[in-house]
Amino acid sequence: MKYYGALEAGGTKMVLSIMDETGNVREQTRLPTKTPAETMPEMLAFFSAQPISALGIGGFGPLNLDRHSPRYGSIMETPKLAWRNFPLMQVFRDHLHVPVGLDTDVNAAALAETRSGAAKGKENCLYVTVGTGIGGGVIIHGKPVHGLMHPEIGHITVVPEPNDPMPLGICPYHPHCLEGLASGPAIEKRWGKPARELPPDHPGWELESAYLAQLCSNAVLSFSPEVIILGGGVMQQHFLLPMIRDKVLKLLNGYIAHPAIVTDMAEYIVGPGLGTRSGITGAFLLALEAEKEQVRQEETEQETQDTV
Amino acid sequence: MKYYGALEAGGTKMVLSIMDETGNVREQTRLPTKTPAETMPEMLAFFSAQPISALGIGGFGPLNLDRHSPRYGSIMETPKLAWRNFPLMQVFRDHLHVPVGLDTDVNAAALAETRSGAAKGKENCLYVTVGTGIGGGVIIHGKPVHGLMHPEIGHITVVPEPNDPMPLGICPYHPHCLEGLASGPAIEKRWGKPARELPPDHPGWELESAYLAQLCSNAVLSFSPEVIILGGGVMQQHFLLPMIRDKVLKLLNGYIAHPAIVTDMAEYIVGPGLGTRSGITGAFLLALEAEKEQVRQEETEQETQDTV
Repeated sequence: MKYYGALEAGGTKMVLSIMDETGNVREQTRLPTKTPAETMPEMLAFFSAQPISALGIGGFGPLNLDRHSPRYGSIMETPKLAWRNFPLMQVFRDHLHVPVGLDTDVNAAALAETRSGAAKGKENCLYVTVGTGIGGGVIIHGKPVHGLMHPEIGHITVVPEPNDPMPLGICPYHPHCLEGLASGPAIEKRWGKPARELPPDHPGWELESAYLAQLCSNAVLSFSPEVIILGGGVMQQHFLLPMIRDKVLKLLNGYIAHPAIVTDMAEYIVGPGLGTRSGITGAFLLALEAEKEQVRQEETEQETQDTV
Repeated sequence: MKYYGALEAGGTKMVLSIMDETGNVREQTRLPTKTPAETMPEMLAFFSAQPISALGIGGFGPLNLDRHSPRYGSIMETPKLAWRNFPLMQVFRDHLHVPVGLDTDVNAAALAETRSGAAKGKENCLYVTVGTGIGGGVIIHGKPVHGLMHPEIGHITVVPEPNDPMPLGICPYHPHCLEGLASGPAIEKRWGKPARELPPDHPGWELESAYLAQLCSNAVLSFSPEVIILGGGVMQQHFLLPMIRDKVLKLLNGYIAHPAIVTDMAEYIVGPGLGTRSGITGAFLLALEAEKEQVRQEETEQETQDTV
């Protein structure tokens, strides 16, 4: 039996897991995300304690995912200053001597959802987590979207609701971006208490669902996902999903006349099929993929040598 | 030498072309888009006049591009009522007896731009045309994006500018969607004269560039294109591009700290490399692809028969 390391590297906590090749968890632990100097040695110790064939990381970002860049695998412009420019992938590779796969935490989660979750069998999906921040992973043609960098869909501009007492939001970069208006901290700042303490009939939920509906509607129009998955702490309020669906229908207003939208909306905007395990499962899939890629590279090198 | 048919099927005009296998135009004509009863016979006559190996169509939409649907290849919910539900691809295939490839006009244009235009060598791009309507084609991982249906990015919600005298726009489906605020007809309705008659210092261009900047900024954040190409009649005002770039930088505000954005914006948001020929060139590429796919299908069928 082979084993794989999976790391969900979040801004507030790290989830570390060792899984066997079928994805069964053999060991798992959590660590608070402090500075690299404090947290890296603990993580390296965990993953060194048993032989693993590869490591997969779903990480908070923005990340440098450009394979041609000398800083491939580093964390980029992040408010968590201690981690800015930290070469996350490289440090793990140098210490563990195994292939390391890296993607955003949300791309990893989206990937996992297409393999065995709410988007199973789909080639295109959007996975969004609404919590301390708002992040989105996008799968198109079966693969995570990177492009120039990777999606940062939490920061799209949305239209402030006319009755929003905090219409500019709290994002230090962007007035009335989605994260600044609809993340957990935005809700708490606006109403003076955390989201989980707002009763279902609180006006805050009308605002919250309106902002998340704008995200969903614009995503449908921009890149046409086959399913939209909304997870994260704020989405634990299960009355939110139906409110969002209703508002998406109103926003699209019959223009996208596809049955998935018009008649099957309840199966189109959904919660994660893997619950809170999308991210760590995605990290495991990235480990498998990193191992496969290493094999492919070695085969290519062997062929080149044979030819010479 | 083999020949291919290429059709750019627009809402106001049809561009029909016969090209040789290297893409050189042998014949080309234009027809006004009337009803199917009037326009289809003329188009069929053009493409029947010489033997072609395949036909590619870049069409106005929305289109049904779901290969598993019984209505694959039909036009869907369109304001051009005579064309609603018209089985465009099927009618050409039945009459011409050649493989027919179909995608949106803007996906076709985007594809052409990645092969030989402003996105040459890129795997990910957004192509937008700003004219009678606003439409966008998206290439990700080297292939046009369909997903649930296909992008309809002209209809995303944008934030009305505070000084816009027509802040709700003119889209019959969506208040303050991009097309309703920034298409050619929206400009004409707002200012009482067509876009081409507004001088470069007219306040209308500040509005126009602000709305198109919102599109670009949200696209960067949503699916991270490697290049954004803006074409169409309204973009013939060449002072618009620099205005849009400036506003995109302000909107992103340093959050996407990629050199393509921060230092090389002049090469990031650009005009079409193929000028006004992106669409018809894309249709030609769709014809080549349709032929290849037919060959692949026949090979698969042959293998299946051989196995039996």
